[in-house]
Amino acid sequence: MLLAVPAIAVLRAQSQSQLLVNGARLNTHLAELAQIGKTPDGGTHRVAYSDADLAARQYAMKLMRNAKLDVGIDAAGNIIGRRAGREPLLKPLMIGSHIDSVPEGGSYGGQVGSIGAIEVSQTLVENNVQLRHPLEVVVFQNEEGGTVGSAAIARGLTDEELNIVTNSKKTIREGIKFIGGNPERLASAVRKTGDLAAYLELHIEQGGILYSEKINIGVVEGIVGVYWWEVTVEGFANHAGTTPMNQRRDALLAAARYIDAVNRIVTSIPGRQVGTVGKIQAIPGAFNVVPGKVNTSLGLRDLDAAKVQMMFQRIQGEVREIEAKTGTKFTFKQVTSSEPALTEPGIRRAIEESARKLGLTTKQLPSGAGHDGQEVVRLGPIGMIFVPSRDGISHSPREFSKPEDITNGANVLLHALLRLDALN
Amino acid sequence: MLLAVPAIAVLRAQSQSQLLVNGARLNTHLAELAQIGKTPDGGTHRVAYSDADLAARQYAMKLMRNAKLDVGIDAAGNIIGRRAGREPLLKPLMIGSHIDSVPEGGSYGGQVGSIGAIEVSQTLVENNVQLRHPLEVVVFQNEEGGTVGSAAIARGLTDEELNIVTNSKKTIREGIKFIGGNPERLASAVRKTGDLAAYLELHIEQGGILYSEKINIGVVEGIVGVYWWEVTVEGFANHAGTTPMNQRRDALLAAARYIDAVNRIVTSIPGRQVGTVGKIQAIPGAFNVVPGKVNTSLGLRDLDAAKVQMMFQRIQGEVREIEAKTGTKFTFKQVTSSEPALTEPGIRRAIEESARKLGLTTKQLPSGAGHDGQEVVRLGPIGMIFVPSRDGISHSPREFSKPEDITNGANVLLHALLRLDALN
Repeated sequence: MLLAVPAIAVLRAQSQSQLLVNGARLNTHLAELAQIGKTPDGGTHRVAYSDADLAARQYAMKLMRNAKLDVGIDAAGNIIGRRAGREPLLKPLMIGSHIDSVPEGGSYGGQVGSIGAIEVSQTLVENNVQLRHPLEVVVFQNEEGGTVGSAAIARGLTDEELNIVTNSKKTIREGIKFIGGNPERLASAVRKTGDLAAYLELHIEQGGILYSEKINIGVVEGIVGVYWWEVTVEGFANHAGTTPMNQRRDALLAAARYIDAVNRIVTSIPGRQVGTVGKIQAIPGAFNVVPGKVNTSLGLRDLDAAKVQMMFQRIQGEVREIEAKTGTKFTFKQVTSSEPALTEPGIRRAIEESARKLGLTTKQLPSGAGHDGQEVVRLGPIGMIFVPSRDGISHSPREFSKPEDITNGANVLLHALLRLDALN
Repeated sequence: MLLAVPAIAVLRAQSQSQLLVNGARLNTHLAELAQIGKTPDGGTHRVAYSDADLAARQYAMKLMRNAKLDVGIDAAGNIIGRRAGREPLLKPLMIGSHIDSVPEGGSYGGQVGSIGAIEVSQTLVENNVQLRHPLEVVVFQNEEGGTVGSAAIARGLTDEELNIVTNSKKTIREGIKFIGGNPERLASAVRKTGDLAAYLELHIEQGGILYSEKINIGVVEGIVGVYWWEVTVEGFANHAGTTPMNQRRDALLAAARYIDAVNRIVTSIPGRQVGTVGKIQAIPGAFNVVPGKVNTSLGLRDLDAAKVQMMFQRIQGEVREIEAKTGTKFTFKQVTSSEPALTEPGIRRAIEESARKLGLTTKQLPSGAGHDGQEVVRLGPIGMIFVPSRDGISHSPREFSKPEDITNGANVLLHALLRLDALN
């Protein structure tokens, strides 16, 4: 184990390569955090800007101070713990996640990455490791309501966004004030393109790939683009008893064929793109009336925006045929369009190599869910580390990741951070 | 025009064969009735047991008294206008319909048959024609809420039915009291099998066959059996971004394939059966969640109960395949089952011959909608006469039948009644 070469740099590298987070402490902190906003069924209800959110943020700031971070809240309400680097002119490395939850959600979502980042920072301090780069440990506010805190530093928030009423019943503007930000000074929180050396986030997968394939660590290729449309199908409402089958313009029959077509088209192409119809309403919606109108939806996600466009065009083509055969008319209104955010290949390699050194298996995979990284990518290169979610369940009280998987993830975060610190 | 044979019977037959209703008066009465519960868009909102229903019933009773009928309200709340026959021992012939409407309905539904029957009666009186059989002109109460008044005379009402809350907010029990019936004495309204010589009803088609084929008179083959099921599809709700397509158990995709299968199966068999999926709800029903559960429906109608059973079995067969391919589970819960009610061939012939003598074209067709006849068939043979509905629209303010078509229908009702009176 002892090296013959006494150079300080080599000694530092050697000792650093053996660093491990305190897994017991990490998982204890996660369990303590899960008490704040705990629901009777063991989940977490801690929507952004709620009292529980405020209490959880205070808990996170206490842990940050214990980890000797210089803790502050930016004008947008993000919690940022700073530690100086050995080379102050380098751009900061940022690690972190979020601690707000969806309504009736789980106890792992962004919590693992937030507490994991704090644990990494504490491990560095306890082992007297100071990075070359300044370190920022971040807890972004209101990720679940639309990556609000990270958007605030990456591009700024519009007035329209600030007026959105959130699950806490507060607007985003009111919420920012509630958690200690300053909605009048939001411009001060916005950072410039290139301001970050890198952003690294640990997160639970929220899908079932790692769990079902028994892989320790997911190396995220990117955060998929998310495209949503409201879809309206207009036919003609008629008496279900007296209208012969060949005289109907049944909007629900047309919608059914559309739903099947979406699935067929999305699954007919190689790759990991997904397509979902999640909403449907038939009007009038009665046993004895042929539906005259249907409101439904379309959601497409992929790492490649061009592939999404191609799928959408194929869906449109099938819809034209369905319209002709059923005497109906479809309308698509795009309501969400977030572009794919690719992770940086060098960061992916740092994650893979860190995992390999720790004896952990890895798999490259896309993130089907949105994350703060999709905003932060405007400021610098990003990387994401996934750990397995039991049965792929997320946003639910049944969300669960094993303590050892969480510890593995934090150790990979630690070592990938050290590698990036050495590289950049 | 004058006959050489002076026998009274022949003279009566000759004069009767030239009888015609007063079409202008009939359509004026219909227009007056349409003022009661009139909606801004020209439709009728006159649900059973509402103030408008009560006012319309008073109007109908006034017309009945003008037609020299002996008017009463039975314990079930049905209006019955009686006229004695020349042969008092014969069973009565019953004609009529209903005057309640669906919410935001039209002005023709049961009104044409009710006012038409009163007009027929008035025409007989004005021409000094007394039938051999006693005549009953009936306005059944609450047809739209489930043929309540006719069920009350044909089989009696259950306590469960009496407790149903109707569109008027009153229970059926309260409604019966409100319109002058006596819910404590309902047994007195129930008639016995075989009590009626025949029941004849004039009605608008409510479908588009006569209108599109330019036929004057529909000779109803029977009232189709109506079978409704509540259908539940259980899959598994999952994140629409993170769940790969091949790991989904998408209840809405399964429901879509089911809806298409229902249409395919129903239209693949020769005949005039119909099958409809009118209701659908996806749970949770969000852009970003693969639906875990869907509540939907199935409605099948045909004159032949065995054909309905066969279609249901084929649908079940396809559903088993859909379940296997989508990892979902379907449950069918039957909530309505009304057996087909066939009209009597002799009555159909009387209608056809009456129409032919009047120079009107006819077509045999099923009634896809429910009618009081489906209850009354327990008491004696039934027949129904349809007149065209513009564009087949019904249960809507846009419901319309031409005055001349309505007059034609009333004349066919008159002459079919005279034929049945001579036959039985």
